[in-house]
Amino acid sequence: MDRSREFDHMISKQLHENIKELTKLCAQPSVSATGQGLKECSEIVHSMLSRRGFNVTMLPTAGAPVVFAERKGKSEKTLLFYNHYDVQPPEPLELWESPPFEPEVRNGKFFARGATDDKGELMTRLAAIDALIDLDGELPCNVKFCVEGEEESSSEHIRDCVLQNVDKFKADACIWEFGEVLEDDQPMQYLGVRGIAYLELSVESASQDVHSGIGGSIFPNAAWRLIWALNRLKTEDERIAIPGFYDKVKPPSQRDIELMAKLPDPGPDYKSRFGIKQFLKGLRGGVELRLAEVFQPTCTICGLTSGYQGPGAKTVQPHLASAKIDFRLVPEQVAAEIPGLVRHHLDSQGFQDVKITDLGFEDPSRTDPDDPFVQLVVDTAGQVYQKPMVIVPLAGGSGPNEVFQKNLGLPIVTVGCGYPGANSHSPNENLDLGLYEKCVKHLVRIMLKFGSG
Amino acid sequence: MDRSREFDHMISKQLHENIKELTKLCAQPSVSATGQGLKECSEIVHSMLSRRGFNVTMLPTAGAPVVFAERKGKSEKTLLFYNHYDVQPPEPLELWESPPFEPEVRNGKFFARGATDDKGELMTRLAAIDALIDLDGELPCNVKFCVEGEEESSSEHIRDCVLQNVDKFKADACIWEFGEVLEDDQPMQYLGVRGIAYLELSVESASQDVHSGIGGSIFPNAAWRLIWALNRLKTEDERIAIPGFYDKVKPPSQRDIELMAKLPDPGPDYKSRFGIKQFLKGLRGGVELRLAEVFQPTCTICGLTSGYQGPGAKTVQPHLASAKIDFRLVPEQVAAEIPGLVRHHLDSQGFQDVKITDLGFEDPSRTDPDDPFVQLVVDTAGQVYQKPMVIVPLAGGSGPNEVFQKNLGLPIVTVGCGYPGANSHSPNENLDLGLYEKCVKHLVRIMLKFGSG
Repeated sequence: MDRSREFDHMISKQLHENIKELTKLCAQPSVSATGQGLKECSEIVHSMLSRRGFNVTMLPTAGAPVVFAERKGKSEKTLLFYNHYDVQPPEPLELWESPPFEPEVRNGKFFARGATDDKGELMTRLAAIDALIDLDGELPCNVKFCVEGEEESSSEHIRDCVLQNVDKFKADACIWEFGEVLEDDQPMQYLGVRGIAYLELSVESASQDVHSGIGGSIFPNAAWRLIWALNRLKTEDERIAIPGFYDKVKPPSQRDIELMAKLPDPGPDYKSRFGIKQFLKGLRGGVELRLAEVFQPTCTICGLTSGYQGPGAKTVQPHLASAKIDFRLVPEQVAAEIPGLVRHHLDSQGFQDVKITDLGFEDPSRTDPDDPFVQLVVDTAGQVYQKPMVIVPLAGGSGPNEVFQKNLGLPIVTVGCGYPGANSHSPNENLDLGLYEKCVKHLVRIMLKFGSG
Repeated sequence: MDRSREFDHMISKQLHENIKELTKLCAQPSVSATGQGLKECSEIVHSMLSRRGFNVTMLPTAGAPVVFAERKGKSEKTLLFYNHYDVQPPEPLELWESPPFEPEVRNGKFFARGATDDKGELMTRLAAIDALIDLDGELPCNVKFCVEGEEESSSEHIRDCVLQNVDKFKADACIWEFGEVLEDDQPMQYLGVRGIAYLELSVESASQDVHSGIGGSIFPNAAWRLIWALNRLKTEDERIAIPGFYDKVKPPSQRDIELMAKLPDPGPDYKSRFGIKQFLKGLRGGVELRLAEVFQPTCTICGLTSGYQGPGAKTVQPHLASAKIDFRLVPEQVAAEIPGLVRHHLDSQGFQDVKITDLGFEDPSRTDPDDPFVQLVVDTAGQVYQKPMVIVPLAGGSGPNEVFQKNLGLPIVTVGCGYPGANSHSPNENLDLGLYEKCVKHLVRIMLKFGSG
């Protein structure tokens, strides 16, 4: 039996144990938006790593602790895994077929909040390490883990944590928290993320709600003020109207466009999966849709709250209104500059009454598609998936990649078991157990080749 | 002893019995928002009227029954009392000093949900009738009662009930369910109400919420569509931008302005009570504030809902968004025309994706300040309150007045025992027993003069 087959056999054998361990991890709520269960979950991760012979340290932050772990391997080279133990809020609960924190396997899929993002992904790393240690007694390279607890809330404290521990985090390459396959199970590689500036805009127009028969024509209405302020941020043609917002935007390169052109048209999948009738700005699909999806910055309303929201009618004029807004930023935009641009714009339009609260910043980040580590990951993927791994030069999402890429000088690649139906951030999030196994096999091959290279 | 003194003496003597009867009525919950206790309460009202020699009929509706009652009097003239036996929900319960459905008298005030609105007011009518029958053995005029059970839920079925029973409800004048005194116990008279069209605007932009990293630049966002649609309804200068909306608006007459000018400036009270820093449209107070408050139609956002509304950040693009909107309408606007105007406007601006749901209509209604019945009520008030009754030509709120005023051709006046501290619709709703007695005395004088006129 060749070595790869030995590993693959071992990985399949241990799947049942993995699911048991993952069930325990996913049964622990760990919602960074509310703080629920973060400490408890960090302790579970600590013990999962300790059990595997890692030297584990809890790095305190002003928020949730970062679980840092390291274990020496055969070669001098060091691989850093970045993952997170926090999850998105599970709401709306009524749309889950099984409760979000009571994991359940149905039809080859493991359902739970965090099933893929990111507890399932963390489990793939541990499963690969188990297989390597079980068969070889040692790891092929040094391995470090950085498992944070605030990724779903803009990783507010990871920058400080990394900067205070630069020596600890030193490595030669980094495997990011997630990865995914396309519709037809073709493996895919993201080489960058957009940045994000997440703001809350709020208005307080009076000291209490007022009967709408009194206040309607003579008192300011918090909800109307908010509507008009938001309308000043983005016009009906989807153009962000904040002066200076587009100044640093770098358009995609020729290489970016070439890489995007190799990817399948996401249009039909998006239309059927999300019930989209028409894409914005007349986009029809194909490479133009791919490019617009990630190389254009956004201003997305994520939530609106004001006044009476129950059934039927209540005749009240609300004194409070607020909106959650996320700006996705493309290279070379700078997240920390966004609140100032918004503030200045709102002030200049007469909206001094709109308060801005910062809820998180991350800068955009990119890895060079010609970095040798990228090629290594692409080559080993081919062995597992029997299909060439495609490279996506930039992802639509965000993460604290820039902190690692810039401060530690690391190439960052994505490897994981996500897929289009994984429902990350949505009800019925799930992990496809077949893709899980493939991902573990890929990780074993990456580590072996990385250690020997 | 003159006749008035005889009546006043009788009214004072029966106060204790009245409170006992009102206690029983208020101890019966009757919350139209939930349906709690409506049938039981209608039966109590039925027996209160039967006991007084009224011929009582329960008029069924698609909702709560209407208690209709009539008793012949000395003259041919007929007075109709409109009241309601339902109350607002008692929540928030923790703010009540005594339980809302366990009436209690403290410091000359009777505390209970419905103490004033509208069980206490109904009791004033019955107390006046008791005094008249006890002293004269008969009523000075024919008296009818329409006591409905859905007033606090937009009186959804009263129009049909009245239209199906036009002959039954025939009368010469109507006394509305409430009335109140100003801060300094000066009696006040409302001669009209604004209409209302309450709509819900909603958008469904996809079949589910989407990660904002995917959807932000290429999928329509329900919240943005709603923002832009709302922005088309009213501009930043508070002008309602719906074509045709102002077409039927009748400005206040010279008489209206004169009447408003006699009222105290509401500005200082509004500023301190509601924490308002500045009124809209540069209004400073006084008569211009009074006129703007009720003679301008409104488009009020009562509530906004979309996406994530919890603490912190959730990076989601919502597929649903909705707003509750109430339009307060001034004479001669027509409530049922509003949804069509809004629909047409949104369609013409490209917002066919915004759905409109009707949540209730009432037309504006006015009584001529020079109607002889108004003068009768004002004159008799002066005898009781020792202060001239001021006339407010239009109130900011709404009600089913128009159903009675237009279909039955009745002048409608307000007579009652409300006052600024009555806490209607709020915790610790109460009835001032001194004002209660004054109101009963006023009602006796009104009926005597009406019957003899």
